[in-house]
Amino acid sequence: MSIIKNEDTIVALATPNGAGAISVIRISGRQSIEAVDLIFRGKVKLLEAKSHTVHYGKIFSQNGKLIDDVLVAVFNEPNSYTGEDSVEISTHGNPLITQVIIKLLVRTGIRLAEPGEFTRRAFLNGRIDLAQAEAVADLINSRTETSMKGARNQLDGLLSAKVGELRTKLINSSSLIELELDFAEEDLSLIPDKEITDKITDVICEIDKLLKTYSFGKILRDGINVVLVGKTNVGKSSLLNYILKESRAIVSEIPGTTRDIIREEITIDGYFFRLFDTAGIRITEDAVEKEGVQRSREAVRNADIVVLINDIDSGLADDLYLQLCELTKAEKIITVINKIDKNHHSGLKADAYVSAKTGEGIGLLMKLLKDKSAGASGYSEMTVIVSNIRHYSALENAKENLNNALYSLGKNLSGEFIAVDLRNAINNLSEIIGLVTSEDILNNIFSKFCIGK
Amino acid sequence: MSIIKNEDTIVALATPNGAGAISVIRISGRQSIEAVDLIFRGKVKLLEAKSHTVHYGKIFSQNGKLIDDVLVAVFNEPNSYTGEDSVEISTHGNPLITQVIIKLLVRTGIRLAEPGEFTRRAFLNGRIDLAQAEAVADLINSRTETSMKGARNQLDGLLSAKVGELRTKLINSSSLIELELDFAEEDLSLIPDKEITDKITDVICEIDKLLKTYSFGKILRDGINVVLVGKTNVGKSSLLNYILKESRAIVSEIPGTTRDIIREEITIDGYFFRLFDTAGIRITEDAVEKEGVQRSREAVRNADIVVLINDIDSGLADDLYLQLCELTKAEKIITVINKIDKNHHSGLKADAYVSAKTGEGIGLLMKLLKDKSAGASGYSEMTVIVSNIRHYSALENAKENLNNALYSLGKNLSGEFIAVDLRNAINNLSEIIGLVTSEDILNNIFSKFCIGK
Repeated sequence: MSIIKNEDTIVALATPNGAGAISVIRISGRQSIEAVDLIFRGKVKLLEAKSHTVHYGKIFSQNGKLIDDVLVAVFNEPNSYTGEDSVEISTHGNPLITQVIIKLLVRTGIRLAEPGEFTRRAFLNGRIDLAQAEAVADLINSRTETSMKGARNQLDGLLSAKVGELRTKLINSSSLIELELDFAEEDLSLIPDKEITDKITDVICEIDKLLKTYSFGKILRDGINVVLVGKTNVGKSSLLNYILKESRAIVSEIPGTTRDIIREEITIDGYFFRLFDTAGIRITEDAVEKEGVQRSREAVRNADIVVLINDIDSGLADDLYLQLCELTKAEKIITVINKIDKNHHSGLKADAYVSAKTGEGIGLLMKLLKDKSAGASGYSEMTVIVSNIRHYSALENAKENLNNALYSLGKNLSGEFIAVDLRNAINNLSEIIGLVTSEDILNNIFSKFCIGK
Repeated sequence: MSIIKNEDTIVALATPNGAGAISVIRISGRQSIEAVDLIFRGKVKLLEAKSHTVHYGKIFSQNGKLIDDVLVAVFNEPNSYTGEDSVEISTHGNPLITQVIIKLLVRTGIRLAEPGEFTRRAFLNGRIDLAQAEAVADLINSRTETSMKGARNQLDGLLSAKVGELRTKLINSSSLIELELDFAEEDLSLIPDKEITDKITDVICEIDKLLKTYSFGKILRDGINVVLVGKTNVGKSSLLNYILKESRAIVSEIPGTTRDIIREEITIDGYFFRLFDTAGIRITEDAVEKEGVQRSREAVRNADIVVLINDIDSGLADDLYLQLCELTKAEKIITVINKIDKNHHSGLKADAYVSAKTGEGIGLLMKLLKDKSAGASGYSEMTVIVSNIRHYSALENAKENLNNALYSLGKNLSGEFIAVDLRNAINNLSEIIGLVTSEDILNNIFSKFCIGK
């Protein structure tokens, strides 16, 4: 590996930012224990403390001001998350306190951690492989039990094991071919082409199975963006409120990126939905409104599903439907007729008929949302699921290289061609678990982590 | 004390809820170590582990499903926050994981902690006094360094020490009087009334000083509610945005209790402001708008300061001003003329003249906000500040009882009257530090804590 171990000592807040009983600051690297000793006063010097012990004491600023009373846990290398000397400081759960303590530590000469840097060090120090490192972020960000299960399996090494198994098969085939090449002058055929072809086909088949889990894995991981669209007074807000009330597991209400789009997050039967209530799609000349409309259009473009709500009295908003079709694929649109409590027999055609007042039909609407997002939900019981685009691409590349190998075999080309393709495919699989990697790939992976992990 | 020690074992999430690198679950009580041992598998049994040691291992569900790999810290009584056997479990920072683990623990027979129950136990077990316990909540909820300093001082026992000192003075005077009562038949006057009067007057004087810090303490603790009001197009939003941009220490953007009122939180020079941007105060018949108007009026009623923004072109909104006066006191209103970049010499009279475009005058407006909220900012350097309404009431009651004692002394009433008043005043002071208390008072205090503290 071309990566040099990073010997800096790093610090970051490890718990979610906000008020709570306690917050935890994490420090890792050669100087970590020494640095904390400079601001901590307890019964013992931390440098003299045993690994895996906890110490009560007080943190003071340089000018002797008491900042907080804390618990400090000390971990000696290699028995820590990162594999390095590490310290965890539990403070009272106030961001002002943790900010001050982190500043004090930075003044001792250590630096703020970059996103994912603790886990990156765990990987670089051989504590976990790359797919497992990526699973750490997925595990933290899982919003449903279904997606957590996928991440957990990946962290436990199920994907790594599967990929490793395929890699070993290819290495075996490759060795045979390379051996044959060594004896090429003697024109000795150690194994029949048929056998090699079968082995490669078998691996392609397994890769295909993994590739197929991706679309479901992505949904597990990222959730489904649902945008609600409709003219004013069709009952958009009351429908949204009814859905939120019904779904027991409301995760949170989050202010949208704009003040015009309300975003709510819910899970239904293990599926994670993000609902966006738009200001509506319309043409306007008002400067303020114009911006809102831009944002709504953007939301529709990025949506996995668009729910077009119509009012049973005013009928289908065909103009709106046409506008939506310009922004997204028709199959992503679910048309809904609201207010069926008023009038049951309108004859209007739509995908779902609901009443946000009585709740009628909303269960069916939710089922429609789930079905549309799940696609083939048969994957839900699979243990190995590919949910990461990087893994997906690597698997696709491996498949392409293996297909090239099969082509060469079919054309009876020289074993050298086949050997090169196999080596490339092996490399593709190695990338997934991080046996072959580059600084760029690592930067890209760990930049998606939160700071402190 | 009439309170019976609670022997239940309790569990709660101790870190803020949300995604992060790690979350911490806290367990305290007789069964805590045993309970965690039931779901934890590590190298050692936790019951055999030494106090203040940390152990890596895995949490499993009853049916053997791996939930998470965790770090567990063990604390033996009495050397823990609560004074009881305690365990802290560090998990991956995902609410789904912590929820499952807490559920598993509850299944072992321990129960969910009530708000503040860990700190309540710390108080009941004599680890801290009541004023210190209350300071823990204030410390966590402090939004500015100034208010944190106040809470820190209270947690370090400065208020307790001051109250204790006054209490001792009263006990001394009281003992003398009671002694005199014992010798009443001999008509022996051990101490001149003048001396007792002076001692009591001295304590009243000290209590008065503490009482005076309250209004400032309250502002430190709770922050200042500022409501922005103005007709449409006077530049309310742009003024709000300018202020938010200027104040470096934006705490957060928080969705209002309603969708019609935007709430932003900022700190300026250690003062914590909550800014509410209202939909405006106006009479309307639209059902939706009507609700918004109701909310705006409510916001004005609860405001510490109302900022009425006028546009230099359209002039003073006198009608709006009159409506505001019906809802709040005139001295709480700051009138502002906006858009002075357009026209400098309008002759309109207001408290502040600003331009949300160029930023002119906004510094002065902020100073006005600070001055109006601080009242007497000379208290900011005081070390002992009363910020808690319970402490304030107890001090007021003590003062009243002492005044009664003075009255009796002045009227030359029997020493028995004086003795009763002094005893009451002593009790009032005892309540602050929790020497005398009731289940109701404790319930009330700790219900304001977050769960997990």
